[in-house]
Amino acid sequence: MALIVQKFGGTSVANAERLRNVARIITDTYKQGNSVVAVLSAQGDTTDDLIEKAKEINPNPSKREMDMLLSTGEQISCSLCAMAIEGMGYPVVSLTGWQAGFRTNSGYGNARIKRVLTDRVRDELENKRRIVIVTGFQGINKYDDITTLGRGGSDTSAVALAAALNADLCQIYTDVDGVYTADPRLVPSAHKLEEITYDEMLELATLGAQVLHNRSVEMAKRYNVKLEVLSSFSGKPGTKVKEVVKTMEESHISGVAKDKNIARLALVGLEDTPGIAFKIFSLLAKNNVNVDIILQSIGRSDTKDISFTVAKNDMELAQKLLEDNRDSIQFDHIDVSDNIAKVSIVGAGMINSPGVAAAMFEALFNAGININMISTSEIKVSVLVHISDADRAVQVIHERFYDEFEAAR
Amino acid sequence: MALIVQKFGGTSVANAERLRNVARIITDTYKQGNSVVAVLSAQGDTTDDLIEKAKEINPNPSKREMDMLLSTGEQISCSLCAMAIEGMGYPVVSLTGWQAGFRTNSGYGNARIKRVLTDRVRDELENKRRIVIVTGFQGINKYDDITTLGRGGSDTSAVALAAALNADLCQIYTDVDGVYTADPRLVPSAHKLEEITYDEMLELATLGAQVLHNRSVEMAKRYNVKLEVLSSFSGKPGTKVKEVVKTMEESHISGVAKDKNIARLALVGLEDTPGIAFKIFSLLAKNNVNVDIILQSIGRSDTKDISFTVAKNDMELAQKLLEDNRDSIQFDHIDVSDNIAKVSIVGAGMINSPGVAAAMFEALFNAGININMISTSEIKVSVLVHISDADRAVQVIHERFYDEFEAAR
Repeated sequence: MALIVQKFGGTSVANAERLRNVARIITDTYKQGNSVVAVLSAQGDTTDDLIEKAKEINPNPSKREMDMLLSTGEQISCSLCAMAIEGMGYPVVSLTGWQAGFRTNSGYGNARIKRVLTDRVRDELENKRRIVIVTGFQGINKYDDITTLGRGGSDTSAVALAAALNADLCQIYTDVDGVYTADPRLVPSAHKLEEITYDEMLELATLGAQVLHNRSVEMAKRYNVKLEVLSSFSGKPGTKVKEVVKTMEESHISGVAKDKNIARLALVGLEDTPGIAFKIFSLLAKNNVNVDIILQSIGRSDTKDISFTVAKNDMELAQKLLEDNRDSIQFDHIDVSDNIAKVSIVGAGMINSPGVAAAMFEALFNAGININMISTSEIKVSVLVHISDADRAVQVIHERFYDEFEAAR
Repeated sequence: MALIVQKFGGTSVANAERLRNVARIITDTYKQGNSVVAVLSAQGDTTDDLIEKAKEINPNPSKREMDMLLSTGEQISCSLCAMAIEGMGYPVVSLTGWQAGFRTNSGYGNARIKRVLTDRVRDELENKRRIVIVTGFQGINKYDDITTLGRGGSDTSAVALAAALNADLCQIYTDVDGVYTADPRLVPSAHKLEEITYDEMLELATLGAQVLHNRSVEMAKRYNVKLEVLSSFSGKPGTKVKEVVKTMEESHISGVAKDKNIARLALVGLEDTPGIAFKIFSLLAKNNVNVDIILQSIGRSDTKDISFTVAKNDMELAQKLLEDNRDSIQFDHIDVSDNIAKVSIVGAGMINSPGVAAAMFEALFNAGININMISTSEIKVSVLVHISDADRAVQVIHERFYDEFEAAR
């Protein structure tokens, strides 16, 4: 008799057959005596189709009207899913974002959830004993205008609703059956993790594993919502994401990830004066350029170099901003490269295992892969390598950690 | 400086090009200094596509979920239209049924508007001077659930909003350029009426002219909303519908209409006892069978016959109901026919012109067309004829009245 929130993504609800499959998962959970709320994304290509319709009318529509348009996608998938469940003979109701109480700020296209007013959903669950289907990705702002939550929005909707309802579990159904130690297409021996901590998941999400969006993991961590990532196709148990995981081996790393969507800029020959780093990074921040890894090194004589990475599509903007402010920043030249990739290992066990970083570097050295930059946090080690080495780097690192791990089991 | 409500139907907003055309009509009206609210239907085939999606999932979905699904159609057309207007550089906002204040009863699929709360629309018009685009066909009920208004819903939305806003004019844009004296495809000499009264329009709508739905005309009459029916394609003036029309000639009839969607049932050999008509028609009413024309005739000896017409798709139900209640009703046999059509002339001038019905019968007699049943009201005369005579009946009647009328001008 638990309260379970289930979230189904766009591929899970793409057509009638898949919607019936989703309806089966939901009703199986309900049949076991649970209260069930399902949060759905729009069907497969619906959002792209709607965007195309908009572009045909106006290449640069307001975000307010785009949200009005795009929010119909989830309304369609949710009403269809409710019909499928009706057809199976269960009590059900579908609700839009505003009906389900999602109140957001006014950031059209990328709104933040401010609160979830759960009266209606609770009434449907507790008094009417209905299955409740809720549109993900959307809410309304203080003007009663429809807003959408932007990337990762439906995951965030599900977690926010689970937090507001104090749900026992939030299951994120997707097209992969959990979180793997590396991309299985790249590393055939990669295996699925039974459990992972919020912090590890956060690092993995940032690093491009793309199973769960960071926003939703951050929110789950803050409100202590137990997550499970699992496949809507396989029927197998997935990966649980929570505060503390059961088995924590000394050498445990939870995964190897790569991110090719980055570029590196190096400012060479900076004067070694106080406040120079502040000048550079406040300039970039003011212009919404997110900086990831930063390295500062002392150059010859009294100059120094600062290198940093940005998302690939921010590279040109960052370079232009720095060139335009050459007078105030004063450097010799800028060195730019997007032939790089970031490869990272993540694991909460790492903090107690100083040998982890060294083992990673050794594996790369043995494979003849050159390391460009290194960055570490308490639970991750990232290195920059040449883009052509990225896949092999993931493979040799995974081999180094998991072949031993497998052998030890 | 008038407040004008404009309604655009599904064919008028069917694609990007037509939406831009609608945007031009709206902004032209706005440019002249008017406040403009536009009520839109869903794009051409959207509703049919959504119904098909539903049937694929569940052949018999609840009306509540159908309304949740179908209401997205207008939300899509309205946001797209707002984008088109944005692209032309005018201030605009699109609103859903609930945002625009439409409150209905709970009759999912066929809801009635209870009130329109105009605060939001007024604020947008008066304080923000925006063009307001509103989804037709929908509202919310007291449970905050989305409802749709059923057939003719968008016309009704427009008239209700015009009434609530006390608008100066409600323009119904459609794919015909006004109300004609007969179907122009059938009667080449049919001409467009400049003006028509609510009552005449009501009779014409019921009789199958299909330009305006009766619900919207009834509401316009009740709240004295000035209507204009016109084409979104031609740019020409249309037909004005109002309480009293300017020119009212003695012999004026406003139109000839036909309805092939009817069937006739005759109960032959009924006992001539009191209350028999009550028994028959309360039985039909209880089962939601709408009866149109009723004729009662004295038969031979002490029996009588009662004939009546119903919509074609109610014919079998009506027959079954009567057969099932043979014990209490007591009749000799039922005679059923759907090879009939109703042909009617409508005109507010008729009441002062006793010769109108006679002239109609004469025209039919001269053409050798047999009349099956006759029914009259203050402003119309209807006859039942064989279905194969229907088109010719319309032609000869139109010729009889309008050739004279034309000659007199």
